[in-house]
Amino acid sequence: MSKGSNVSSSVIKRLPRYYRFLGELMKQNVNRISSRELSEKMGLTASQIRQDLNCFGGFGQQGYGYNIEELHKEIGKILGVDAGYKTILIGAGNLGKAIAAHMNFEKRGCHLIGIFDSNKSLEGETVAGITVENMDKLKDFCNTNNPIVAILCIPKTAAQEIAELLVKLGITAFWNFSHYDLRMTYSNIVVENVHLGDSLLTLTYGVNNILD
Amino acid sequence: MSKGSNVSSSVIKRLPRYYRFLGELMKQNVNRISSRELSEKMGLTASQIRQDLNCFGGFGQQGYGYNIEELHKEIGKILGVDAGYKTILIGAGNLGKAIAAHMNFEKRGCHLIGIFDSNKSLEGETVAGITVENMDKLKDFCNTNNPIVAILCIPKTAAQEIAELLVKLGITAFWNFSHYDLRMTYSNIVVENVHLGDSLLTLTYGVNNILD
Repeated sequence: MSKGSNVSSSVIKRLPRYYRFLGELMKQNVNRISSRELSEKMGLTASQIRQDLNCFGGFGQQGYGYNIEELHKEIGKILGVDAGYKTILIGAGNLGKAIAAHMNFEKRGCHLIGIFDSNKSLEGETVAGITVENMDKLKDFCNTNNPIVAILCIPKTAAQEIAELLVKLGITAFWNFSHYDLRMTYSNIVVENVHLGDSLLTLTYGVNNILD
Repeated sequence: MSKGSNVSSSVIKRLPRYYRFLGELMKQNVNRISSRELSEKMGLTASQIRQDLNCFGGFGQQGYGYNIEELHKEIGKILGVDAGYKTILIGAGNLGKAIAAHMNFEKRGCHLIGIFDSNKSLEGETVAGITVENMDKLKDFCNTNNPIVAILCIPKTAAQEIAELLVKLGITAFWNFSHYDLRMTYSNIVVENVHLGDSLLTLTYGVNNILD
């Protein structure tokens, strides 16, 4: 099938999770799985899974289950896992370092090529095999290397301004950890805001309720 | 109203976000806001917001909008922002350090009281004002201090085993960054799995589609 055609946005949202679970099954050398077994692993209903995966056609066969490797490959294609989009990271504090070191970018469609920080004392440090450069090198770097994804691990106060500069330098997508909801007035800019604080509050709410 | 009564789970999921936006408006000294203005800020429809916030009754008045401070306080109460649940962090690598330093636990219902790592070289280091202790101190610490929330910033391979130990030591809630979907066979355990990789893949999918 062609990339993403006929797939609803609610299915799209679940794709990274399917992709992850199918990948884990492949590591365990499982070849096929029924919607019922997959539903138990993922905490979705079997009928939801059948509906979702039917969008990709041809990988499920009644009585035989899904061909895990083929389904994983197809979902990966739709997500763009092999795209290798050139990516830069802004902010090399603890969070930036953790992201740079542990995200397996190459398996998630990105290729980290530069890390920048305004803190002079971090300049020259090596993080995930990349030398941290000062922000004053950003413009030249972007003009030469044309990255299109930027990861923002910077304080809230700096986020909007730096994002606007990055858009001028050709950045098309932001993975934003800055505690600030980036709002882009430009069309064709993709923003994924990560609010860890919201996630913690969801946990707190849960504790609040089981302790009732 | 009493905590969470008559509030559907889909509204609950949006509560941390309302809480955050209302908090930002308070910082800007805004006292009241209409559902229409709030909808523009949050990217929801005004009718969705009216429906959601009606669950809390009494804070919206037609033609006058919502009393921001009262609504913020009420939502905070439901989420448990002042609960101060005793919290420990397992894993003091870059991610653990970033989480410890930047999460504003006290404003999110948690009180960080201990940090543990199996890496002897991190022992004695101070992170967010807390001395990192070796994992062999965990049991005594839990028996003495009775934490109930654990943040897991540890590798996937160690997650399930450490989580099971922590449950035995009285931990009731897990904020899990370990790239492993914790599944608890015990009832009354709250788990919030954070999958940053899924978030990155959602971004990659977005780039993939705007570049089509």
